[in-house]
Amino acid sequence: MARKASLSGFPEWLPAERLVEQHLLDVLRRTFELHGFSNIETRAVEPVGQLLQKGEIDKEVYGVGRLQAGEGETISATDPNALALHFDLTVPFARYVVENAGYLAFPFRRYQMQKVWRGERPQDGRFREFTQADIDIVGDGALPFRYDVELALVMIEALTALNIGDFTVRVNNRKLSEGFYLGLGLTDTAGVLRSIDKLEKIGAEKVKQLLMTEVGATEEQAEKALALASIRTEDTSFVEQVRALGVTHEVLDQGLAELAEVVGSAAQRSPGRIVADLAIARGLDYYTGTVYETMITGHEQLGSICSGGRYESLASKGSKTYPGVGLSIGVSRLVSRLLATETLVANRSVPTAVLVTLENDDSWNQAQDVATALRQRGIPVEVAPSAEKFGKQIKFADRRGIPFVWFTSSENGHEVKDIRSGEQVQADPATWMPPAEDLAPQILRGNQQA
Amino acid sequence: MARKASLSGFPEWLPAERLVEQHLLDVLRRTFELHGFSNIETRAVEPVGQLLQKGEIDKEVYGVGRLQAGEGETISATDPNALALHFDLTVPFARYVVENAGYLAFPFRRYQMQKVWRGERPQDGRFREFTQADIDIVGDGALPFRYDVELALVMIEALTALNIGDFTVRVNNRKLSEGFYLGLGLTDTAGVLRSIDKLEKIGAEKVKQLLMTEVGATEEQAEKALALASIRTEDTSFVEQVRALGVTHEVLDQGLAELAEVVGSAAQRSPGRIVADLAIARGLDYYTGTVYETMITGHEQLGSICSGGRYESLASKGSKTYPGVGLSIGVSRLVSRLLATETLVANRSVPTAVLVTLENDDSWNQAQDVATALRQRGIPVEVAPSAEKFGKQIKFADRRGIPFVWFTSSENGHEVKDIRSGEQVQADPATWMPPAEDLAPQILRGNQQA
Repeated sequence: MARKASLSGFPEWLPAERLVEQHLLDVLRRTFELHGFSNIETRAVEPVGQLLQKGEIDKEVYGVGRLQAGEGETISATDPNALALHFDLTVPFARYVVENAGYLAFPFRRYQMQKVWRGERPQDGRFREFTQADIDIVGDGALPFRYDVELALVMIEALTALNIGDFTVRVNNRKLSEGFYLGLGLTDTAGVLRSIDKLEKIGAEKVKQLLMTEVGATEEQAEKALALASIRTEDTSFVEQVRALGVTHEVLDQGLAELAEVVGSAAQRSPGRIVADLAIARGLDYYTGTVYETMITGHEQLGSICSGGRYESLASKGSKTYPGVGLSIGVSRLVSRLLATETLVANRSVPTAVLVTLENDDSWNQAQDVATALRQRGIPVEVAPSAEKFGKQIKFADRRGIPFVWFTSSENGHEVKDIRSGEQVQADPATWMPPAEDLAPQILRGNQQA
Repeated sequence: MARKASLSGFPEWLPAERLVEQHLLDVLRRTFELHGFSNIETRAVEPVGQLLQKGEIDKEVYGVGRLQAGEGETISATDPNALALHFDLTVPFARYVVENAGYLAFPFRRYQMQKVWRGERPQDGRFREFTQADIDIVGDGALPFRYDVELALVMIEALTALNIGDFTVRVNNRKLSEGFYLGLGLTDTAGVLRSIDKLEKIGAEKVKQLLMTEVGATEEQAEKALALASIRTEDTSFVEQVRALGVTHEVLDQGLAELAEVVGSAAQRSPGRIVADLAIARGLDYYTGTVYETMITGHEQLGSICSGGRYESLASKGSKTYPGVGLSIGVSRLVSRLLATETLVANRSVPTAVLVTLENDDSWNQAQDVATALRQRGIPVEVAPSAEKFGKQIKFADRRGIPFVWFTSSENGHEVKDIRSGEQVQADPATWMPPAEDLAPQILRGNQQA
């Protein structure tokens, strides 16, 4: 990956790299559809007023306006009807659900894989244009909690199917944290969460100071909040550890029960993949219960590559609410790391399995007949553009990474040559098949230097 | 299609509609890969200077700029480094080829299916955001003419595979037209083409006036140019008709030979699909030889849904040029028409084939086991969220359009019910399969009112 994007923050892949990305997207699509998720796409732009109502992200948003000949159009953040590129797929999805509720079959399960844009300073794994793959399940008025458990299972299944190595899903529950803070007597629960969210960045001592100065916690309250955040178990034993801190609150009880169900089910059905991590806060403030994030083992500094949670009121219209639970996979972030470390590599860059050669300039039509016969049986084929010497036509195939060349006419009739081994055999266009592993480019596990 | 986009010109599909679009994209991808085209994606934005160097389209371009908190950023058409959304996939592809030439295996065959944006006034079939599916073959320095013939064949195969009804590929050749005009003594060939391009809109008499007033043609020259544009044949007989007009020029000869090869091959390999139409001009001025467009029979007023041509110098760097031939399918335009006329319809909106019911609240885990067993054999499954009465769980499946419900426990062991027929049979999660046509949503030919 010595190649640099010609426009910083806007990565573009070479064909063999795109095959890795396409493979990930295909595996995700397959997994999501096996779990009953329907695909949708939403438009790339939203009115600024729609995008910014959740606040705090205005600086990252790209505004959009028609270029007038020779003059400039001012893009304004203060005009709520001005258009801007979406920065995630959740906000547009919420709008889509509200707009189309009358046409959707609830609980509505959808997956969505699209580009999003953020005007952030580009860094390793952080782009200005990137692809996200989201799934959400949204109810009409209510959504059973069980879907929170199911989402964790789908997530583990999808990430396992991607074959990208070990990963851990870290899960927490907002009710657990908030109930605990309330039980402690700290009512500014959002303030506490914001401070706790900085734990990894600034350390426990500084978070403690923050809690005391910004949220008005006593030293004991701050220490208890930090003690909660230090709990991390691979099973439901976190419940006892929390209880041992001696804090009680109705909302805490609910959060403990929910988190125990998610962790218990996932630990049972997919051992070793889930961790209850009571430090997880997730930045965006629309989550109301379960929150998820995912680290790839050995690539923790990449941050979470799959995050999400339960929200009660992201989508609403009048008295109608559409609570949901969802998650979002950072496909570009993941792909860029998989490519950089050669964790996944494509074994050729072209779909073509066979090049049909031309014996002479008049044999193009016959070559097309062979190509058609092979394609009808699912074999990707190109026809040589001109009747150069066979050696040159073979070099053409070699240069493009095409494993087989076909000779339409020879003493023995049709023949096909594997240009890697040099083996050449008689072949019938109506029946010959390449080995299964040569039919299409294979995505293989490569080196795994971190 | 009573539903209107909530933002004019930015269509969004319901899940069942998106299935039709996904089907088209899948068929195109499959066809393109069978012909050896590799996929790439390019970033959504280009520097304005890059986008506008081909001219004439500045008014349609959307500029992009970061929103500053509370203030506006001016998007300027005069700053060549300012960013704008791409309005087609050809210009970004040309840049991609030049930037990555050292990493590509020429002749480079790529397909690209992405959204593009144009700030035009929205009309029927004309959107501000829409999906294009492009294929191009690009050479390093040179590209054999034969690829022009191949492109027409791929195009016909792709459109046939889409199963959207009759269509006609209209093909012409710039060299033929320009050589003819030069032979006539009209040197402003671009001016003549521009006038001829208006033929369908303003009629022959007005085009004749235009040719005489704007291009300086004599009445006889104008009449000959119009006579050329009136030629339309389903075979290579256009050659004789052109010859009969008594105009000669070296470039005309070349154009006639090329067009005859495209039309002859396509007429032979795919009878009834191709027409040599000497009125076809194609607006964009980078085409230098073959030009294609495609009309769906009965939907001619929709305009061309698949257009393209040969270009010699779209992509170049210093003395290096990358000539190519390509075409672009207007996927959104096509989908919107197919949906409006119900030409293609999905027979259900969810991928789910089976809903596994819950006998009681503790059977969720057992239901998940069944779901996993079925999914492992490629059957899309959902699990009911709660152990309501079976009648309610069946209604849940019915509301979501899921054809089968599964009962994990009954007197006879597992049973599965087809809720359309009411038939209920014993079933083993390890072996049961739904009928092939129920495994996934089917895209079927529907009504075909125009």
